[in-house]
Amino acid sequence: MKIESVDFFYLSMPEVLDIGDGSQDALLVRIRAGNYEGWGECEASPLTSIASYVCPMSHSACKPLKYSLEGKSINDAQDIYAISRSVHENSLDLLQANHTLSGIDIALWDLLGKKAGVPVYQLLGYKKAYPKLPYASQLFGNSPEDTFEKAASTIRAGYKAAKFGWGGFGKSGLTNDINHLQAAREGLGPDAILMVDAGTIFGEDIAAAKERLVALKAVNTYWFEEPFVNGALYPYKTLSAASPPVPLAGGEGCSNFVQAQAMIAYGGLSFIQIDAGRIGGITVAKRVADLAVQYGVTYVNHTFNSHLALSASLQSYAGIEKDIVCEYPVELKSLAQEIGREKILRGEDGRINLPDRPGLGITVDMAALKKYLVDVEIRVNGKNLYYTPEC
Amino acid sequence: MKIESVDFFYLSMPEVLDIGDGSQDALLVRIRAGNYEGWGECEASPLTSIASYVCPMSHSACKPLKYSLEGKSINDAQDIYAISRSVHENSLDLLQANHTLSGIDIALWDLLGKKAGVPVYQLLGYKKAYPKLPYASQLFGNSPEDTFEKAASTIRAGYKAAKFGWGGFGKSGLTNDINHLQAAREGLGPDAILMVDAGTIFGEDIAAAKERLVALKAVNTYWFEEPFVNGALYPYKTLSAASPPVPLAGGEGCSNFVQAQAMIAYGGLSFIQIDAGRIGGITVAKRVADLAVQYGVTYVNHTFNSHLALSASLQSYAGIEKDIVCEYPVELKSLAQEIGREKILRGEDGRINLPDRPGLGITVDMAALKKYLVDVEIRVNGKNLYYTPEC
Repeated sequence: MKIESVDFFYLSMPEVLDIGDGSQDALLVRIRAGNYEGWGECEASPLTSIASYVCPMSHSACKPLKYSLEGKSINDAQDIYAISRSVHENSLDLLQANHTLSGIDIALWDLLGKKAGVPVYQLLGYKKAYPKLPYASQLFGNSPEDTFEKAASTIRAGYKAAKFGWGGFGKSGLTNDINHLQAAREGLGPDAILMVDAGTIFGEDIAAAKERLVALKAVNTYWFEEPFVNGALYPYKTLSAASPPVPLAGGEGCSNFVQAQAMIAYGGLSFIQIDAGRIGGITVAKRVADLAVQYGVTYVNHTFNSHLALSASLQSYAGIEKDIVCEYPVELKSLAQEIGREKILRGEDGRINLPDRPGLGITVDMAALKKYLVDVEIRVNGKNLYYTPEC
Repeated sequence: MKIESVDFFYLSMPEVLDIGDGSQDALLVRIRAGNYEGWGECEASPLTSIASYVCPMSHSACKPLKYSLEGKSINDAQDIYAISRSVHENSLDLLQANHTLSGIDIALWDLLGKKAGVPVYQLLGYKKAYPKLPYASQLFGNSPEDTFEKAASTIRAGYKAAKFGWGGFGKSGLTNDINHLQAAREGLGPDAILMVDAGTIFGEDIAAAKERLVALKAVNTYWFEEPFVNGALYPYKTLSAASPPVPLAGGEGCSNFVQAQAMIAYGGLSFIQIDAGRIGGITVAKRVADLAVQYGVTYVNHTFNSHLALSASLQSYAGIEKDIVCEYPVELKSLAQEIGREKILRGEDGRINLPDRPGLGITVDMAALKKYLVDVEIRVNGKNLYYTPEC
């Protein structure tokens, strides 16, 4: 089959708020070949990613992504690997490329899964998909009381694990952080798993992060996530060896394989968190999952948007039985809720299972999403390089 | 002073060829404040970088760059650091941000230098700028004879150092590479410095790169540049310890400080090459130069566009006397030649000196560049987010 079309749909809530909620907009990718249609989702800044697909070439290593897609063959996994390689070579000097490639790669796997009539994880070589224990991923409350209430309601909703992050953490002093951590633990009760996400707030400041370790240990934190900016290997490594020991998680900011490799090999991480919508799609995410197994590091998805993105994020480690936890966004805006017609829901045992359907197993109904569609037009020297496609 | 305007000018040759020549287009940034005007240049994909400046916010850590610029104060270096920090925090999840920030940061330093009436390197804390020995940076020839002729003419033109890169290197077998290396050395003669740039052709393949070491040693290569993709720490480190020993150079692909830090600390590099038009501007480049001194690694600029970009690239290590060599593009397209009214030319001793003028010391005359101007219009939901400004 030849790739017949690659279409981008920029969706947004009517109002995007200045909060750490990544479900407020989305960039969907639809790829058609033969009689099949695959869907993917790119993480962050739809307009910039669209521009990287259609931009004029700057030089041989800075071509638009469409160069690696238009008219190419898509019959089996080798064709996806070839497209991924081509983007990395021909768009090497285009920083945004990996964001855009991510949605494309996901759509290609969805398409091939539908063609083969099997879930994507089987195309990746996994015989089965093991159930995952979802942790409810959410922002800290505005006050400790608010955080307590969020934690308590998470337990009432049936979750066995919860992660709190961002908000005021690391910004309003140690005492405030301790109060929020204690409130989260009290709200969850003693048995639930509690993760804490610092959202890179400490930059490269080891001392500031270190000050939080005693409190993190006291509330039995399962992991301490992104104390530092992604790739700050020395701070990560140093903190991982500090006392009291708290397992570190990170990696969501990785936008290619070697960045994740460095975090695993030199960062002292216990958990590597990969966003398939950012690192270059399922292809690259699977490479990282394989590497994590070799290093004895636990792989976890990073997802804070739709269930289409969630399905894509889970495929790459679906077959690794021991890597049990998965991120599960619980505060999705209506846009992100409506992107997939089917939902990945918790069963009675509190776990989730990947859809046992071809591809990603999630249907995208653009007609229903039309109300969120953002109209984009990019003109260069009088030529229309991009306009929003018909739904 | 308040920042009054930030304008982007996308310039391009009438035809952009599929070759490794980054001087075929350019994105200039003009910033006005008070009665001053600063100019900067961003590396690669002008359209994508423009989009990252004007794009709608996706969430709190994915804002357009304009958020960190519009209406901000610019009086001294601390204001530039604050803007740089703000972009890193508020545009954290926007991959293209560092490309765009680079041109902005450079323009801000140029502006402050003009205000203070001193060259930028003095604002950075250097008392003087030491002369640098430029190496003529060029592509390998199409045949060994062609490479020989390029090398010979480089010597005739008065250069004492030359770098050959890209072209067919690593693509057409070991024998072909050996022939080109020998031709380059023969053309240069025994005394000139010869650098070799593999342009990431070996990806992460250590064995393929290793096969070239004997030939590289035989022609007395000063450094072997970018055998692997940027950030492939393990391959770099392994090759740096292989036999025969050939000094490694790399880092041009770094788009933030911690990536460069990792290459210096874990990559076994002898030379760290930083593109101020990519890593986030002069601010971040200077941080890397300081770190390189601590590690005993030699800092070198990476530049393959205009003399405005060249001046910007040199400022960050102008005061480090021992770091003597600098990249000097010799095959610039007319566009890149015309961007700066003044040129940074070799003196009789074969060296170059930074302009002893305020700011970057390079005047940009947009009227003269108008013939290269690319007209861009970006509309989102009927609103014009960007149109090419008046010259």
